[in-house]
Amino acid sequence: MSGFEIDRRALLGAGLVGAAVTGIGGTRANPAPLAPGVSKANFTAAMNAMRAVVGAEWAFADPDTVIPYAKTYIPDPHHRHVPVGAVAPATVEQVQEIVRIANAFKQPIWPISTGKNMGYGSAAPATPGQIVLDLKRMNRILEVDPELGTALVEPGVTYQMLKDYLDDNNIPLWIDVPTVGPVAGPVGNTLDRGVGYTPYGEHFMFQCGMEVVLPDGQVMRTGMGSIKGSTAWQAFKWGYGPYVDGLFTQSNFGVVTKMGMWLMPRPPVYKPFMIRHADMGDVGKIVDTMRPLRVSSLIANGNLMMSAAYQLAMFKRRNEIVADGRPLDDDSVKKAAKANGLGMWNTYFALYGTEGTVAAVEPIIRAAIGASGGEVLTAAEMGDNPWFHHHQTLMAGGLNLDEIGLLRWRGNGGGLAWFAPVAAAKGSETTGQTKLAREILDKYGFDYTAAYVIGWRDLHHIIALLFDKSDPDQEQRADACYRELVTRFGEKGWASYRTGVNSMDLVAAQYGTVNREFNATIKHALDPNHILAPGKSGIA
Amino acid sequence: MSGFEIDRRALLGAGLVGAAVTGIGGTRANPAPLAPGVSKANFTAAMNAMRAVVGAEWAFADPDTVIPYAKTYIPDPHHRHVPVGAVAPATVEQVQEIVRIANAFKQPIWPISTGKNMGYGSAAPATPGQIVLDLKRMNRILEVDPELGTALVEPGVTYQMLKDYLDDNNIPLWIDVPTVGPVAGPVGNTLDRGVGYTPYGEHFMFQCGMEVVLPDGQVMRTGMGSIKGSTAWQAFKWGYGPYVDGLFTQSNFGVVTKMGMWLMPRPPVYKPFMIRHADMGDVGKIVDTMRPLRVSSLIANGNLMMSAAYQLAMFKRRNEIVADGRPLDDDSVKKAAKANGLGMWNTYFALYGTEGTVAAVEPIIRAAIGASGGEVLTAAEMGDNPWFHHHQTLMAGGLNLDEIGLLRWRGNGGGLAWFAPVAAAKGSETTGQTKLAREILDKYGFDYTAAYVIGWRDLHHIIALLFDKSDPDQEQRADACYRELVTRFGEKGWASYRTGVNSMDLVAAQYGTVNREFNATIKHALDPNHILAPGKSGIA
Repeated sequence: MSGFEIDRRALLGAGLVGAAVTGIGGTRANPAPLAPGVSKANFTAAMNAMRAVVGAEWAFADPDTVIPYAKTYIPDPHHRHVPVGAVAPATVEQVQEIVRIANAFKQPIWPISTGKNMGYGSAAPATPGQIVLDLKRMNRILEVDPELGTALVEPGVTYQMLKDYLDDNNIPLWIDVPTVGPVAGPVGNTLDRGVGYTPYGEHFMFQCGMEVVLPDGQVMRTGMGSIKGSTAWQAFKWGYGPYVDGLFTQSNFGVVTKMGMWLMPRPPVYKPFMIRHADMGDVGKIVDTMRPLRVSSLIANGNLMMSAAYQLAMFKRRNEIVADGRPLDDDSVKKAAKANGLGMWNTYFALYGTEGTVAAVEPIIRAAIGASGGEVLTAAEMGDNPWFHHHQTLMAGGLNLDEIGLLRWRGNGGGLAWFAPVAAAKGSETTGQTKLAREILDKYGFDYTAAYVIGWRDLHHIIALLFDKSDPDQEQRADACYRELVTRFGEKGWASYRTGVNSMDLVAAQYGTVNREFNATIKHALDPNHILAPGKSGIA
Repeated sequence: MSGFEIDRRALLGAGLVGAAVTGIGGTRANPAPLAPGVSKANFTAAMNAMRAVVGAEWAFADPDTVIPYAKTYIPDPHHRHVPVGAVAPATVEQVQEIVRIANAFKQPIWPISTGKNMGYGSAAPATPGQIVLDLKRMNRILEVDPELGTALVEPGVTYQMLKDYLDDNNIPLWIDVPTVGPVAGPVGNTLDRGVGYTPYGEHFMFQCGMEVVLPDGQVMRTGMGSIKGSTAWQAFKWGYGPYVDGLFTQSNFGVVTKMGMWLMPRPPVYKPFMIRHADMGDVGKIVDTMRPLRVSSLIANGNLMMSAAYQLAMFKRRNEIVADGRPLDDDSVKKAAKANGLGMWNTYFALYGTEGTVAAVEPIIRAAIGASGGEVLTAAEMGDNPWFHHHQTLMAGGLNLDEIGLLRWRGNGGGLAWFAPVAAAKGSETTGQTKLAREILDKYGFDYTAAYVIGWRDLHHIIALLFDKSDPDQEQRADACYRELVTRFGEKGWASYRTGVNSMDLVAAQYGTVNREFNATIKHALDPNHILAPGKSGIA
């Protein structure tokens, strides 16, 4: 998978983009390298065959249309994540045809849903030479059952579309959004095992039933989906026999063309909280305070502990806090945080229930948190504070794009890579993690803009590696920094739950050879030509 | 898989059991047929090799020790579910050795945990010629984390052992038991995707991390389990890359040797409820009343609707209700139910929380249920009623064997097969289901002893097909009846979530050829010699 590097900027600078290079199907040729073993003739034939399936306007190999699929926020200094084409089918049958064509020409294809996997590689493929299989046109909300609280959607459906549908039809169900919910969609996010903010935040846990185009072109429905006349496809997760839905998450074993999900009934009362703690060293204490509340389900949603720097980076520029070139010291951060109503750690959670249940739980939570030295704040105190408003919105399944502000922290270059190692939800885990993260980030000149999240029993450390991607030196450093983060955290037992297309092999290797061989065995059995998303999660 | 039938009773009657037949390793020979393609010499060699691994006292091929593994409550009129031997390893390394031996001699092995899969086939294999791989000696509770609410256990651990461990160590965590919890165990039940009674009743949902001996003898740990030094193996379900734990449920792709699980913190207040409804036709109304309470999580555990006949069968003999040979008419059932404080439907659920939350939720629930015509009853009214006490115990993770009483309903012959079709949790589903079930059961002379359960969004119809297995005619009829239930419910879209070893092919076929081929492809890739539990879930 190496030796196929392209300097996109050099190509762009040389005026290739926009030049009338005669190429495939009469369009301009894409200068990105083809996949290993795929000849120009086969690539051209595959593109032509796909074009015949979807129509000329929905299959592209010219740089103008393809380059946007390579736009990422992650470090990619060697421009390895550039596709050679894109095809956008409108139906399941077209997806089947495309998969069969890919097999015929051994042309790899990289499925995306809405392609907004921000900070993990967006729409870009893990390895060179792939055609992006863009499912954005398959964007129907096929069913919402207001009584059961279920939905069945296609991959191109965005969270915004689903939210609008519920609002327009007065259906009292909530969605659960990840960051950048408006442009992202439930299928892509769930398949990447993304996480949101409400009690339904563990998206894959609340997924129910899939339709999958297998690498051989057959359509399979999981769970109860293959039972003619069943009412339970979106009601019962497991079906009969091996439960296989998990195989289609963070993997390349099939193209998911429909996905069922559970939606949360809108609670009569929703009360969001913010807890302010004064010192960076408080986070261990916060985790140990929140864990029993979360594990006992007194708090039903994930508990998000946002560092001041992460919070500031959402709405401020770095040079509003410290001068360019200076390290982001705690004193400066604390000062800016205080000026904006923030603590050094800001913990968000909510109560969902009835008047009575919320009133019953609130004092218990206040007592526990008070003992940890935290200030308990609600809408009454925080009013229109933009940070509080942001989290208040997200924890009620609301949509906003505030976190896109992170991309402007160091300038307009838009560099962001999420690093997300996992531990048990114990305060003792935070000391070493925060220290190690700061050491590595400092070394490369980046800031500790991070959060911790308690899920069901887990503690995710979510580090936003922010850099200016328009600065080649910063991109190089960010790349090296990310790799060192993955490697050194992994050595301590803190492996990632998710990673960008630039680091999938690195993370997969940490999970060991037996697991990799197991995945490779399944891959080869299901996809003997390895046409589906090679490189995804380190699976060739 | 056909043509290998043995009349066990005939053999027993002929005095073969107990006769000094010279056989393998000096013990008496097992007259059960060998697996297709396995020669006597290879079987003998495999047994000898396994004996060398585990010691002579833990590998058996003589009928005396093997026949108990064939004891089931399900109909098996042709005695197809008789193993040819059993081997009981004490360590993971021994399991690996046994798997390697099985491959060398192409001798199929059938893993069991505690072997108490009552009403689904207990310890018996799906097809003839298998050696039972009995994991009962691997019965260590490896870890319980009281703070996280997690446990890591071996397959031989029973629910009783885990409960005793928690009690003995004053750990305020609950377990969640299926029926016959004392003798069954969490690994076997979870892998069969069994269900219990507390908010953690969907066992596979609350499973976290596995260790698996793969069919090639390698050991794989799922989730975070392969990360050296990780604290998150029992804290975070998914790991990185495809989530594969589901592959090892209801399947034959590996031998699970360790399993992690989440345990529920003991709530400060636990209040069980029973709702009495007067008529068989009320069940649809009950489902529609309970669903919104369940889907909104106002009620956090599954809602179990027990028909009067099922309830009576737990503690009564059939001939206490109607004379032998007479149909079990509704009037007689209603009379007996009333005499025992029961309605025709008896719905059980509980509130779990604090004084305040329970007090806040109870009136809402009472109002909703009152509107459905149900009588809301609690410990205050039901006192020591044995049925209430039974469910009160189960919904608090308590243990009892009351439901074994079902086996005595029609005599001492102990015949029971669970039929468990799945639908969405809508009242409209019950009308057709109850009618069809009664029609088929009536046709074969059996009783409608059934329950419905609302899970997360699903409605399981749990029908206990009770017969006297000591009566060959009843066993034949029960076999035909079960098959007709599966077939005709399946035609209506009501397929089973789980079934006995005697009907796995039948159910698997309903899930269609694409799904079966998918499973077969994975099976062949992971287990090319098909040595692991052929026939399980219809996967050869």
